[in-house]
Amino acid sequence: MPIDPVAFAAELIRCPSVTPAEGGALDLLEERLTALGFTCHRLPFEEPGEDRVDNLYARIGTAAPNLCFAGHTDVVPPGNASEWQVGPFEGTVKDGVIWGRGAADMKGSIAAFAAAAAAYIKAQGTEAGSISFLITGDEEGPAVNGTVKMLDWLDRHNEQIDHCVVGEPTNPHELGEMIKIGRRGSVNMVITAQGKQGHVAYPHLADNPVPHLVAALAALDALELDQGTEHFQPSNLEITTVDVANEATNVIPATARARINIRFNDRHTGQSLIDLVKNTVSAVAAKRDATLTVSAKISGESFVTQPGPFVDLVARSVEYVLGRAPELSTTGGTSDARFIKNHCPVLEFGLVGETMHKVDERVPAQDVEQLTAIYHRLIDGYFAEAAAFAAEKQSRG
Amino acid sequence: MPIDPVAFAAELIRCPSVTPAEGGALDLLEERLTALGFTCHRLPFEEPGEDRVDNLYARIGTAAPNLCFAGHTDVVPPGNASEWQVGPFEGTVKDGVIWGRGAADMKGSIAAFAAAAAAYIKAQGTEAGSISFLITGDEEGPAVNGTVKMLDWLDRHNEQIDHCVVGEPTNPHELGEMIKIGRRGSVNMVITAQGKQGHVAYPHLADNPVPHLVAALAALDALELDQGTEHFQPSNLEITTVDVANEATNVIPATARARINIRFNDRHTGQSLIDLVKNTVSAVAAKRDATLTVSAKISGESFVTQPGPFVDLVARSVEYVLGRAPELSTTGGTSDARFIKNHCPVLEFGLVGETMHKVDERVPAQDVEQLTAIYHRLIDGYFAEAAAFAAEKQSRG
Ligand SMILES: [Zn+2]
Ligand SMILES: [Zn+2]
Repeated sequence: MPIDPVAFAAELIRCPSVTPAEGGALDLLEERLTALGFTCHRLPFEEPGEDRVDNLYARIGTAAPNLCFAGHTDVVPPGNASEWQVGPFEGTVKDGVIWGRGAADMKGSIAAFAAAAAAYIKAQGTEAGSISFLITGDEEGPAVNGTVKMLDWLDRHNEQIDHCVVGEPTNPHELGEMIKIGRRGSVNMVITAQGKQGHVAYPHLADNPVPHLVAALAALDALELDQGTEHFQPSNLEITTVDVANEATNVIPATARARINIRFNDRHTGQSLIDLVKNTVSAVAAKRDATLTVSAKISGESFVTQPGPFVDLVARSVEYVLGRAPELSTTGGTSDARFIKNHCPVLEFGLVGETMHKVDERVPAQDVEQLTAIYHRLIDGYFAEAAAFAAEKQSRG
Repeated sequence: MPIDPVAFAAELIRCPSVTPAEGGALDLLEERLTALGFTCHRLPFEEPGEDRVDNLYARIGTAAPNLCFAGHTDVVPPGNASEWQVGPFEGTVKDGVIWGRGAADMKGSIAAFAAAAAAYIKAQGTEAGSISFLITGDEEGPAVNGTVKMLDWLDRHNEQIDHCVVGEPTNPHELGEMIKIGRRGSVNMVITAQGKQGHVAYPHLADNPVPHLVAALAALDALELDQGTEHFQPSNLEITTVDVANEATNVIPATARARINIRFNDRHTGQSLIDLVKNTVSAVAAKRDATLTVSAKISGESFVTQPGPFVDLVARSVEYVLGRAPELSTTGGTSDARFIKNHCPVLEFGLVGETMHKVDERVPAQDVEQLTAIYHRLIDGYFAEAAAFAAEKQSRG
């Protein structure tokens, strides 16, 4: 039973699976994978203060290596539905274009991998190894009850994945431009200046925290974190907000607060940057006799899957189908690959992300067909060298 | 009919005249002044968007010069009345202390001047000149429907005041410490940085306005406006707030805004400081290729009543009663003197301000009696040299 990737993508789009709603998308995928012979595990997780989220792990075959496709069926809200040219959940395919929320991010790539897997299984069976799907409904949300907990579940059930492709839309403008082989890390910090409230006419009785904070932010803004590394662009610090919220024009406020975000490469760790920011801020505080404090939360460390047989295989699969060599990149925001990289080599390759999270999200039907061909070539190549890949994973682990 | 200044102060405190409420305070003052022979004009003003406010101009005598006492019967709210040792509007006099909202600021000094005027009139009549009261109910509020409009009314009615004493509480800790002969000016400005919103992972597609604003604020904070002048302390710039209000940790905001207040001496004008701030901010903007704009509103220019016969008279009156020479100061916040200085020489002398605007506002009854004696000596001295003061005003005008 072959899968038509374009029709299946449209079917998935018709499931209104805005995080945390399952919307029928996991049911539909489970039904189709079950029909192909996959063993499916629905993995709903919940915890206090977070939405309950449904997830799906599906595997066919028992042999190693286990090639895993990771992704998410949840989508971001459509925004103002009236601004769309088509209904965001109608799953319209028209003039060679698949329209709707999730077309690019990432129901299109799920459909493509399912179609590729169906074709491979029909031709080759599962003797050479296993294929699995690790699909969360909580990628666009807090990501608490999704991939992280599924990976824990895999560990607890001795379920091993050996190599993983994440189907995020990695191409900026055209299919085949870019494979993501890593991601920068991200850390958020809050800098608080504590002063003493007073009246602007009597500044000697007050201690205005704002100039202290301004001096600290100027020092942070002047930091040059690095010039970039082999696989990464330079690390970057952004001051995302400064807030005092003092309504009175004649009052010196007591407190001022700023927040920064640093996207960082493999020259740093979250902790090394927290130390750097704390030292920089402390130096300003000491010089000005100010009270400045820093609190921090690491969202994710940077990681890179070093170029090697697996990266080569994916790049060669792209080149085989499209005739172009993809760039190996570590740019952009975070993805669930930041969790998977602790379990096995992981990289990301999917559709074109230009319209993701926007009104009129859409992808060319041809892209979904070509992505199916790329994934098929990838699966073929992976199991053709199954022994090598199984060994690579073991030597790494 | 003599006036007991302590009893009259307590009576005025019993009128709950929180801005903009008249609370019976102007009625009471008008009744007492009418009994002394004053001609009273109630001057209510209103305009769209502002509270209607009642005011009182009262004059006795027709001859020049006209010595004016300016002040306000309105008071700031009592705050949490349960925190007070006495009811804030009970007008309690106990163990030699007058308690209640407005005791210091400034029903006590109104009562003192009324008692001094009553004593002078009884002894000397009004042949040597006139005495007047310019009393607003809108000093603690927006000051729109108060002194400014009364001064316009005086102009329109060819009503001339020649010298003015404002009864604000000018003494920091002890009666007789300080006469205010001027005030610093005040100007508020808003500095806005306009950038381009974006995602922290793609800073090259955005333009973060926060570092631009931080650089501008650091440059403004580094300005040294002056070292002070003969009668003034150094001008001072305070950054009173910075606000971005960006909730999202992964978003580079589009706009950032800061507000500054400058209290300035006679080395500057409001406009010269606006020019200075605009030039400073423009230089930062040019260097950073940023969009930074400045808007400004001048609250009041600085002014000083140069030491001379009138200042000397008030200082000598203080010294005569208390045996101490008061400091001539221009410190502190603004007062309605900033409006009166365009009409005639003005200075401020009243009670001790330590408890003003606070819970348990109070003044020693003895201070009110001594202030009455000082005002009486002042009125005596003024009319003893009436011809000289009338001439001074004319040469100035
Ligand atoms: Zn996605
Ligand atoms: Zn006052």
